[in-house]
Formats: sequence, structure tokens, C-alpha cells
Amino acid sequence: MEFVTGVRKKETLELSKVLAPQSLDQEVLTDGSIYSIRNMGEIAFVILRKRDGLLQTVWEERKTNLSISELKEGDCIRVKGTVRAEERAPHGKEIRAEEITILSSPAEPLPLAIDKWKLNTSLEAKLNIRSVSLRNVRERARFRIQEGIVRGFREFLHENGFTEIHTPKIGAKGAEGGANVFKLSYFHKPAVLAQSPQFYKQMMVGVFDRVFETGPVFRAEKHNTRRHLNEYTSLDFEMGYIEDFMEICQMETGFLQYTMELLKKDYAPELEILNVTLPKTDKIPFVKFSEAKELVAEKYNRKIRNPFDLEPEEEELIGRYFKEEYDADFVFVTHYPSKKRPFYAMDDPADSRYTLSFDLLFRGLEITTGGQRIHDYHMLEDKIAARGMTDEGMEQYMDAFKYGMPPHGGLGIGMERLTMQLLGEENVREACLFPRDLNRLEP
Amino acid sequence: MEFVTGVRKKETLELSKVLAPQSLDQEVLTDGSIYSIRNMGEIAFVILRKRDGLLQTVWEERKTNLSISELKEGDCIRVKGTVRAEERAPHGKEIRAEEITILSSPAEPLPLAIDKWKLNTSLEAKLNIRSVSLRNVRERARFRIQEGIVRGFREFLHENGFTEIHTPKIGAKGAEGGANVFKLSYFHKPAVLAQSPQFYKQMMVGVFDRVFETGPVFRAEKHNTRRHLNEYTSLDFEMGYIEDFMEICQMETGFLQYTMELLKKDYAPELEILNVTLPKTDKIPFVKFSEAKELVAEKYNRKIRNPFDLEPEEEELIGRYFKEEYDADFVFVTHYPSKKRPFYAMDDPADSRYTLSFDLLFRGLEITTGGQRIHDYHMLEDKIAARGMTDEGMEQYMDAFKYGMPPHGGLGIGMERLTMQLLGEENVREACLFPRDLNRLEP
Repeated sequence: MEFVTGVRKKETLELSKVLAPQSLDQEVLTDGSIYSIRNMGEIAFVILRKRDGLLQTVWEERKTNLSISELKEGDCIRVKGTVRAEERAPHGKEIRAEEITILSSPAEPLPLAIDKWKLNTSLEAKLNIRSVSLRNVRERARFRIQEGIVRGFREFLHENGFTEIHTPKIGAKGAEGGANVFKLSYFHKPAVLAQSPQFYKQMMVGVFDRVFETGPVFRAEKHNTRRHLNEYTSLDFEMGYIEDFMEICQMETGFLQYTMELLKKDYAPELEILNVTLPKTDKIPFVKFSEAKELVAEKYNRKIRNPFDLEPEEEELIGRYFKEEYDADFVFVTHYPSKKRPFYAMDDPADSRYTLSFDLLFRGLEITTGGQRIHDYHMLEDKIAARGMTDEGMEQYMDAFKYGMPPHGGLGIGMERLTMQLLGEENVREACLFPRDLNRLEP
Repeated sequence: MEFVTGVRKKETLELSKVLAPQSLDQEVLTDGSIYSIRNMGEIAFVILRKRDGLLQTVWEERKTNLSISELKEGDCIRVKGTVRAEERAPHGKEIRAEEITILSSPAEPLPLAIDKWKLNTSLEAKLNIRSVSLRNVRERARFRIQEGIVRGFREFLHENGFTEIHTPKIGAKGAEGGANVFKLSYFHKPAVLAQSPQFYKQMMVGVFDRVFETGPVFRAEKHNTRRHLNEYTSLDFEMGYIEDFMEICQMETGFLQYTMELLKKDYAPELEILNVTLPKTDKIPFVKFSEAKELVAEKYNRKIRNPFDLEPEEEELIGRYFKEEYDADFVFVTHYPSKKRPFYAMDDPADSRYTLSFDLLFRGLEITTGGQRIHDYHMLEDKIAARGMTDEGMEQYMDAFKYGMPPHGGLGIGMERLTMQLLGEENVREACLFPRDLNRLEP
């Protein structure tokens, strides 16, 4: 009998190994996809795209086994050759190819010049041929940064005693009420797609005290804006035994601090490719909703039309205000009006028109909604009744409260929005591998 | 202006801090939910459920501020008191309570004796009141182990150069063909829920070489068995530049080895609570599909009814065979019949009735399906045609191949099935927080 004993030790080296000092002047084996070919006649520069960056290989007449005409962009090849120092090459090193093996070839020439520094292509066109446009190193770098954000979220919360949960996306009833849910038939029963893991993460606070989830959420909103997606990844946490809702803001600040350090440490090449300046997270101002409205009304000479609503333009102005006055990229806007928050939000005992809740704005865009939740069963029942709702279809959610829940709260962060703002993108679709919007269901 | 500067330093201690040697005979503050009360008259043992285990606190008449009659099971409380050594307490320590503050109280007595070692309740009943039944320390321990499995998956793959991706769950067409998909209306367009991230992860191999995703998948299968769920979490990876499909088996073996070590290191209390013996993963046998059928037919005197299909009973017998013959908990069954695999599976050049693919059986149950995929555009087109299919609706998937893809393959692991088998559970619903099956859409 034969056995599998573990990960295969590969002869082909990753980029970091090729670039390591001990590889200099050594014969190595590596592989990659041909990003571009610059043919100078007796010599040609064949740039390989590898997962962690570009690598210059050099084809030389009579020294490399193949003819240069046998190679084309998009080929996946294996290269055996000697590592040489070369200042003008990316990373200051190149491989002088002796033996090239073609592993696979494209059937047609690439429809985009993916080796351009910036793709000179519309967002629509890029999205239509996503599997190719993302091969551009700048395009794909965004999603490496995004990976770092999600890693940061999980690592930080794990270190702070949170348990990861996986909750269902198909359910009988939505968390936030009737509108804006996608409906489906579940074995002839009506069902909906989850708008958020809200009910489940609250129920799990009663079990694990602190929980988080990173998963898709679905919003059937008919918005077609630069900042809306109909399916996005939500970074959610919920924590019990809080003393007040500021603890949630503090936990989020800790996450941002941890994650910026992680990006600096593990994603420096991608930050450089995208020329990203990381925001400061050492101290994040917080301001009450109504005060924020007044501050921007005064400074930017703007009339307050509705004291209980925040217009997108006001959001941007609040971001601008705190940038100008405090050099702050982030600001917590607290105490949102009760009318604008779901029934489970805890009202402010000092003024029940407002809630113990917050949004986090990042460069003028809301990237987080959070707050303290009601934990007392009777208070929750009263609020449901006061809103003219019933708890029909929420019996099992209500059970958690009936049988005792600690004071708690939490938040949800839009992964794509956070990525978008960090990278300074104008459209959230740039920060989503395969966006879903009013018009786009493919690829 | 006021600022948030980071995570709040809590005065209330976590269990590990309470149990730390330096806390002995010190006054501490902690919190938790009352798991049980044993009232002896002048003294009462009040067991707190904290996120990492149980903690004994001791109420004493005239020494503790409250009357014992004011406390009840399910209360969330804060306790100030002195840590004392006490052999008979869990972890050998207890807190002599001086001051107890009730943070919240249940509205009704608990409907289950959650403090029992084993809940004496049917699976159905447990699922119906999930937010309460999971408060039992044994019930919740399973999901801590599950967290460890998913952490192990991500950490191991990250260390091996994989990039995490997030792909859409709503799409225009399913990856595995027409049947068994949930259908929904997406702004008046027909749409389906993803059965797997297959197409997307393959497309992303062309971008990042190695990718993984942990997310929900949806199967509208009308099975109602102990091992099927209609929504589950799939642990997927896909890797490029493979030399053969055994590299995928090797990567999975590496994941299992890494994860068992992680569970030993970080989840020892939960393994002990559940009395789990971790399986050996140092070497995993592999055997061809048709050979495996013959081995069990011979040993267990069973007739082979269909040489191109594997019945669940045969799967179990293969597991039994390798346990008996090689003391192996896992076995890779390779070279599945082409007819049983999707169109994108790479046929074996040596015998095209079979594929370069595998299942991993764990204690007689399939927990993984994987294999090498076709990477050549023309070969893929030919196979689609040979099956009488068209590539309609798959144009953007096909683009990835048209414009060049490395040799690659990957797999999907059922998170709940792996958890179930590791824990020795009889029903996969025991390994899912909120299972979805033919009859269950709530909670």
C-alpha cells in the first residue's frame, strides 16, 4: 500500500526563494505565466507573473533551448536557469534561462494589454472579462490588501476571545424587516436570503459571549450607486458583558490598529504597487449625530433639512470636517435617531429619540453600523409592540432573551467599502472580485 | 473633542486570568452567566459559565451582599471576591463572592437543564431551541473545535502561499449543472444560489496561482439523511502549477496534520470535554476507485453491482477495510469514473473512463471531493461537446482558459462533515449551528 505523507517539496522555487541571497549565481527552477515579452533579437526579456510579483527571465539565442518565437504572452512556463544580479530588473535580479518548458498555452492572444501599469479600460469592460483583467498586477494587488483586512479582522478578534461562527444564509424571515430581501422558494416554502447575521450572532452571544463571522449578505436594494452592492461580504462581531456601547467602538479601533500594522508587515509590496498611504488609527474622534450635523451646517454654511436623517452629502462633509479640523480619516458618529435604527437597537435612556449606536465614517463614507442591543426580554417585547410589529417568525430569536442574555452589542463592517476607502477607489465594484448590482449577475 | 484610542482594558477578568497563579488569594472581578446553583443553606455554589469554561463561585450568608434567593439560573452577573484554592472545584479554584451584581435576568426559567453533562433531549428538540441548548458546555464545545478546523485550514493555506477570495453566491448559472440548485428572482432575472465556488476559484488560479475560500454553498438535494445538509460551509482550495493530482492530496494531508496539531495546542479543553481522540494523519493510504471496490468485495464477501458507482455502504466498508488493515482513519480513493465527475474534471490519459480525481474518506464517510481540472481550452471545449452540453452562460469561465491557465486542481471539504467525523457524531446536524434540511428552515 502507498501513502500520502504531507506537502510535496517542490523543486520550482517561489519568488522569495529565487530572490534570496543564497540563490545568486545558482541554477534554479521556477514557473509562472508570461506577462510580457520584449524581444531585442539575440536576447529577449520574458517577464514572468508569479503570485507574489514579477520576475525577469532572459532568453538568449543559442543559450536557451527554445526559439523565442515559440513563446507568447499568456503561456505558463517552467524555467531552468541561473540567477544573476541585474539592477534594471524588478527586484534587481533576473534568471538567465537555459531550459524553458511550456506547461500550457492560451488559445487566443490576450484581449487586454494586462502588462500595462494601469489598465486603460473602463470598469464595465474590466468586469466583463474579470478572469483576465485581474491578471494585471495592480488590479490583483487590491485583493491581496483585501485579504489582509479580513485576516486582520479574524486574527485580532481571535486574540480577543471571540469565537468564529457560521450562520445560515437561507432563512424563513429577514433580520431587518420585510423590504429589500431576496426571496426564494425552499422546497415549496417561502424563504429569504440573509441581509445580515444579526439575529444569529446575538443568539450566539448567549453561548460564546463574543462571536464573529465573515460571510456574504444579500440586499435587494434598488440603488445603483458607486457605493452599493447587492451582495457583499460583511465582517460582523458581537460581544457580551459590555459596560456601554463605546466598548464596541474601542474594539473596532483595536481591529483597525492591528490591521494597519499587519498590512505594513505582510502586504508592503501591494501597498507600494498601489501607492497607498495607510490612515492613522491611534485616536479616532467621536461625535454625536446631532452635534455632527450642527458642526458641518455651521462650517459649510448648510441648512439642516431633517434633524433625524443624514444625507450622503452630510456624511461626506462630516468626513471633511474631521479631516480639516483634526487630521482624522475616521470618525465615529454616535447616537443615531431611534427611527433610523432597527427595533433591537438600545434606546438612549437619557433621550429615547436617539439610540446607543454609531456609524464609523472613513474618509466620509459609512463603513460600519453598530451599537448596543436590547438584552432584556420585556424591553424588547415592548419595543416590538411600540413599533406596531409582532414577534411572529422570530420566536427562536426571542427565546434567547426570554432565557437570559448579557448586555451586548456589535457591528457589521462592509469589507468592500473598507477596501475601497483604504485604496482610494471611486467605485466599490473596484474592491469586489465579482460584483453583483442591479444590472450585473455575471461573471 | 474626544477620541477612541483602542481596546478597553477590562476590570473583569477572563477565566485564564482568574486561574493564573498570581490571582490566588487576591480580590478579583469577573462575570458570567449562572449555569447552576447548589444551595446548601448558609453556603451556595454558584457555577458561572464563561466563554472558556466553568468557574465556581461561592455565596456565603452574611459575607455576600445579596440574598441567595435573589439569584437564579440564567442570570448574568458580575462577581467581586477572593480567589481560593479548592480541589473539588473545576480547575481547583473558586471565588468566594463578596459582591454580586445582577447584570440581566431571564424572563422565564430555562426550559432545559443545560447544566447536565449530557443533554437528555432529542436532536429535534435541541435544534428547536438552539440558542438555549448550545449553552450546554458539551454542545458548544463542538463549535469551538469547528472553529479550530477552519482556523487550521486558513492558517495552513496562508503559510503555503494561498490567497483568500470571496466569490458571489448569487449567479446566473450553477457550476455543476442544472439540477439541485435553488432558484431565485434577481431583479426580475432568473438566478441561482452557488452550489460551489468552483468556476470562480478556477478563474482566480489564473490570477493568484493558489486560492482558497471558506463560505456557504447551497444544494437543493432532496436527500434527508444523517449526512446531508442543504446549506453547508465548504472549505475550498485550488492550486496552479501542479505536476499531478497527488499534489492536491498532499496539500490536504498537510492541512490535516497542521490542524490536528493546532487542535491539540489551542483546543485541548474542548477535546477533553468531548473525549475526542484525534486521528493519525502522518500517512494516509491511497487506492484506486476500482481497486478499492475489489478489496472490499473480496474481504467482506460483497458483490460488485456497478463498477462505476460507489454505494454509501461500500464507502463505509472501504473505511472499515483501511482501519482494519492499516489502522488508517483516512483513505484517499482516487481515479473516480469520468461519468460520475463534472465536465471540468481531467480524464486519466491512461484510461479515459476514469479521472485524475479523488475523494477523501474519513472513518468511512466522504468529506472531500477533489482532483485535477482541465486547463486546456480546446480540451475543455471538446469535453463539453462530448457531453452534449454547450458553454452558454459559461462564456466568462471559458475566457480564463481561452487566455491561458496553468495546470491546476483543487478540492472542497465539507466543514460540518469533517467536524462530525472528528467528534464521532452520528448526525451532521450536530455539527452545524443552525442546520438547513428538507424540513428545517428555522431557527
